[in-house]
Order: sequence, then C-alpha cells, then structure tokens
Amino acid sequence: MKRALALALLTLLPLPALAQATGDLGLVVERASGSLLLVDRSDRAALTRIEGLGDLSHASLTYSPDERFAYVFGRDGGLSKVDLIDRKVVARTMQAGNSIGGAISDDGRLVAVSNYEPGGVKVFDAETLAPVADIPSAGKTIGLVDLPGRRFAWAVWDTGEVFMGDFSGAAPVVTSLGIAGVNPFDAVLTADAHTYLVGLFGEKGVMSYDLWSPETPPQKFLTDYGKTGADMPVYKMPHLQGWAFTEGQFALPAVGRHEVLWVDSETHADRGATPVHGQPVFIIAQPASPYVWVNFATPLNDTVQVIDSRDHKVVATLTPGKAVLHMEFAPRGAEVWISARDDDKVRIYDTHTREKLAEIAAKAPSGIFFTARAHRPGL
Amino acid sequence: MKRALALALLTLLPLPALAQATGDLGLVVERASGSLLLVDRSDRAALTRIEGLGDLSHASLTYSPDERFAYVFGRDGGLSKVDLIDRKVVARTMQAGNSIGGAISDDGRLVAVSNYEPGGVKVFDAETLAPVADIPSAGKTIGLVDLPGRRFAWAVWDTGEVFMGDFSGAAPVVTSLGIAGVNPFDAVLTADAHTYLVGLFGEKGVMSYDLWSPETPPQKFLTDYGKTGADMPVYKMPHLQGWAFTEGQFALPAVGRHEVLWVDSETHADRGATPVHGQPVFIIAQPASPYVWVNFATPLNDTVQVIDSRDHKVVATLTPGKAVLHMEFAPRGAEVWISARDDDKVRIYDTHTREKLAEIAAKAPSGIFFTARAHRPGL
Repeated sequence: MKRALALALLTLLPLPALAQATGDLGLVVERASGSLLLVDRSDRAALTRIEGLGDLSHASLTYSPDERFAYVFGRDGGLSKVDLIDRKVVARTMQAGNSIGGAISDDGRLVAVSNYEPGGVKVFDAETLAPVADIPSAGKTIGLVDLPGRRFAWAVWDTGEVFMGDFSGAAPVVTSLGIAGVNPFDAVLTADAHTYLVGLFGEKGVMSYDLWSPETPPQKFLTDYGKTGADMPVYKMPHLQGWAFTEGQFALPAVGRHEVLWVDSETHADRGATPVHGQPVFIIAQPASPYVWVNFATPLNDTVQVIDSRDHKVVATLTPGKAVLHMEFAPRGAEVWISARDDDKVRIYDTHTREKLAEIAAKAPSGIFFTARAHRPGL
Repeated sequence: MKRALALALLTLLPLPALAQATGDLGLVVERASGSLLLVDRSDRAALTRIEGLGDLSHASLTYSPDERFAYVFGRDGGLSKVDLIDRKVVARTMQAGNSIGGAISDDGRLVAVSNYEPGGVKVFDAETLAPVADIPSAGKTIGLVDLPGRRFAWAVWDTGEVFMGDFSGAAPVVTSLGIAGVNPFDAVLTADAHTYLVGLFGEKGVMSYDLWSPETPPQKFLTDYGKTGADMPVYKMPHLQGWAFTEGQFALPAVGRHEVLWVDSETHADRGATPVHGQPVFIIAQPASPYVWVNFATPLNDTVQVIDSRDHKVVATLTPGKAVLHMEFAPRGAEVWISARDDDKVRIYDTHTREKLAEIAAKAPSGIFFTARAHRPGL
C-alpha cells in the first residue's frame, strides 16, 4: 500500500514549485542558441537551461522587484517573461520588428522596451505583458533607462532628441529635453539617478542632463570625445552602460582608441587617460573597491585589465579566454563572472586574489545578469 | 480511492516549502514581544509572525546572499538564523551575555557578532552557526562592519582602539589601526567600503579611516562635533549607520542638538547645518534622489522631515505616528516604510507624493530590514 501510494504521488501530483530563494541567481545569455542558462552564484553552478527565447544576439534583461521574473529583450523584438522558480518562459510577445533593450519601472509595475523598427518605446504591464502605452518616435530609440516615479528616459538616434516619459498617471506624459546632438549612440544614468549621459556618434562630445532638475540646460563635455576619423577603424561601439562611477569620476571607453578616459563627475573636467590593451567595450567598477575592470573589442578580446581609479594605473592583466563579451560582479564584489564566448565557458574569478575559482559550461555565452540588479536604479 | 489518496497526501506528506521569491521580503523587529514580522514589499502586507527570538530591544539583522536567511543579533547575546521560506527559526545560539550587532562576510560564509559582555567579536559559520573564531577585546565592541575579502572592522568603546580582522585564511589576522579617541560610540562604512567613520563620545570630533589604504594615518574632522556640555540633555545617541552619503557630502546627526550637519565627503570641510524639528536619530538617503529623511529622539519622535541635500532646506514635515523609530526605503526608492512603535503600525509612504499608501499592524515595531540589504556592503 505504501509503495502504491508513493507511486501514486509521483504520477498524480503536479511537480511542486521549487523552494528557491532567488537572491543569488542569475541568467547567462546564450546568444547563438536563443537560450538562457540559469545559474546559482553561491554554488557557482548552472541549474538549468531555458530555451525558446528567439534571437538573443545583443540581448539584455531586467528583473522584477521580487527577483522571481526576468524580462528578456531580444533583438528580434520579442519580449519574454521568464520565471526563475518554475524555470520556464511564462509569457512572450513579439512587440516590434527589432528591439534594443528595456527597463522596468521603479515600482516594478511597468516594463518598457526601446525599439529600432518601428522606432519608439512600448510599455507593458509587468504582470501580464499586456500593452499599456505606445510612444512612437521619428527613429531608432537608444539609451532607455528607468527613472524614479514610474518614469523612463531615452534618446532617438536619427533626430538626436532626448525624452522623459512619465507613466505614473492615467495617460503617459512625454516631455522633450531637446536635441543632444547628431546621432546619440547610447546613454547611461548614474546610480543616484541624477545625471543622464548621452554619447554622440555623429559629432564630438558627451551631453550631460541633470534629471533632478530637468529644466537645467544640459552641459556638453569631453568635446574631443568620439570617432576621430575614417583612418581609425571602430571594431565595436563601446557600451555606455558599463561606464564606471568611482572616486568622483566617470571612466569612459574611448571610441576606437586603446584608452580609458577619466572625467571629474562634478565639474566634467578631463582627469587624464589610461593606455590599455585594446578598444574598451565595458568598463565596470568592482563594488566596494577602487578598481575598474575593462574588456576589449575584437580582435584583442581575450584579455581583461584591472585599473586603479586613484592613480589610473593598470594593476592586472588577465586572459580569461576567447572572446570575452561581458563581466558581472557579485553585488558586494567578492567575485566576478566573465563570459568567454568562443570557449563556451563562464569563468569565475576571485576579485582579491584575481585567481580563477571555477568555470561553468555555457553555449556561446554573452551577457551575464545577476538578480541583484532588481534593486538598482537605471539598469 | 482518489479521496483516500488525497487524505493520505495530506497526512503523509511533509508540508512542502513555499514557492517564494525572496527579493521583496523584509523583517520588522517587534521589540517588546521578541518576534519578527515577515512582510512582502510588493503586496504591502504581513505574511506571518516568527516568534522566540529573545530580547530584541535594539536588535538588528543581516541577510544571506541568497536572501533566504536572516541572522538576528539580539540584545541578550542570542544569535538566531531565520529561514524566510520555511518561516521559522532554524538555528539559535546564546553566544554572549550582551551583544550589539553584527555583519556577514562579503562571500556570505561567515557571520560576525560584536559583543559588550564579554567584550569582543565572535565569528560563526553562516551555514551551521558553529563557532569559527573568538577575538576578545579589552571592552565593549561597537561599529562592526563587513569589509571586502572576508574581513571586518570594529572599534572598542573602553580603549578607543580600532581593529581590522581578516578571516580569509586558516587563522584570523587582526590588525590594530590605532586609537580613534576617547569612547567611540558608533561607526559606519561608506557604500564603496572606502571610508570608515568613527564617532566619539568622550571628546569632540569624528575620525576617518581610509580602508583602501589602511596604512594612511586617519584624519580627524568636525572637531566641534559631539556633546557640548552637561547643560544639554542627549535623549538618544544618534545612529551613525544612518549617516547619509549624497551629493559628495556626509549628512550627520548633531549630538544633542536640533541640527543636521553637512560635511564634504572628500575634504571633510564643513558645508553648513540644517535646523530641524528635534535631535536627529537616523538620517537616511532616499535612493535615486537628492533627499534625506530624518527621524528624531523622544519626546519629539512623532515627526519625520525631508531635506534637499542640494540646498540643505527642509522640504517636507510628516507626522507618521507615535514614536517613529526607523525608516527603510524600497531599494530603488519608490516608497519608504516607517515604524510607529506606540501606534503598533508600520506606515508606508510614496516618496514622490509623500502621501501614505498603506499601513500594517505590528507589535511595537522598531527596525525594518528589507532583503535587498543582502547585496550592499557594510551593513
């Protein structure tokens, strides 16, 4: 009888949801196979593979405030909601032809997607993915970030215009902040949601918007910043999301040059440059430390360098593997996970000894996203 | 048969662990009853009460990296491990006669407790609460914080000495950073783990330690800071954990005076003072905003004020209830939870409209701790 019962249990019961705290989980984007690898930070292990996400080249994602759900923004315009506890896709909508990223509102109720084709911002209910608002634009939208008070900011590549959208009321209120310049290619928000920095491709310089006082005219700085000529090939446009903010400075990737640039975050004064191994792609601050970590564009993308933000000197050069595409720190900085796409590996380093601790097999891994991002503004 | 099976299921099966993402949970300390109220931020609701925690007056707690477990530091020397998914105390040890707080190492493996009686720091395995290290001191330990690399810092009230302990190797290595001054009463670490600030009770001033370069001599600043005389009653020593760091400034609670003090975080220069409603207890920065929120010592503790860190002006005065003891922000700043002990309520305010959104019944609530703290250094 007991055995019959046990069998019955196995066959009749729906598989119960797993008891799983979600604070130390993460997702690794496997770009070639349209899948996500669910990982456990504490165990330094892969838990399962979640498939059926569509085209994940250049994909990014964000998390719900409870760290249970990921919203995945695919290049093909697919918006997918993934459940980390049930370990599956629970909702999916093809919301545009070509999308470039997204963000979740500070209260976790709305998910916004920034689209290339057709250009604009679409906003969805985070619970159901039902459409809530559709803000068309005169071109490709870039640099979408969440702002406090159920708001978002973004820029338009074709027109150079910067917008702030407030979705806290019954109908969205969209305000223009003016023209940043020719062809903004990316933008980033500081961790205090104070400053929105817009990088330009069609002209030199970076525009800085004070979002605590949006009526303040924006300031242009680093007026020598940008692509300096046709003679200089740019292998990959750097990601401004990776701009590090440390010791009262911004650390910027030089476009097309083998340099990291340092700018005073208050005065925007030039504080010098650090010669590095290649064209920087991501520059990310190691939490609770003076260090930033830098990876590089092809063909020099087997290397990562560590720079001390106090004296701007390179203090370590690592070679984590072939085609290093991304780095993600444990939120308190004890270790860093690095994706080596062409080795099919995620490699984990101790940030203090800078020695390899472990590695995890992954199919052509690119972005690594820990759930701790749920608690940070502007991601 | 089906019904028999169902009954069998109910009686034979252990209650399965709840499927529960843990990113938006929190615990409210109910000081008088030795209990914790488990709350859900998203639902603005209490989930259950967890009892048997001992003396929780002046209690604090910290979270494991997966946001599943809380380590609760009771005034009676009890260290308890609470499981937020199974909703119960899973381990408990009486580790001293009188304790004052604790911290968890950056990798989540060690929990340290700072004790008054007998004085010292005890370190435990975070998994089992088995003792790992015992560092006696010549007096009461205060201001214990976690540092990167499995290290902690603390100070000793009786001798004024400041210590750094490294627990990354086989045996602990404890280093003295010298004497801060007469009777350090509390200390705090900046979010980048760069600066350790020690407040003094027996003499004027604050000592600042550069923990990125611990060989650098400490600096004394605000040399007018402290208790100015027997004529001025101090109703409650302020909590330095609440020191806000915003706009390149520290916002400090004046001791015994109705003022918030502003100090340049780089130069330590005096940047002025804001007259406020009472003696400040906690000064906490609203995330992603220019604002700090302040509560006050008895008998003026029914009020909370909001100050703009840019011009140091009070922009709002709220009266959330009787005996406001603590404030905790949602990690991206959308709302703040405020404990009103003598109303037996936790009241929730929208930080943008500054209007009350909801309230939750709680028994004499004091500290409120959201699980997002798991991802922040120095808490």
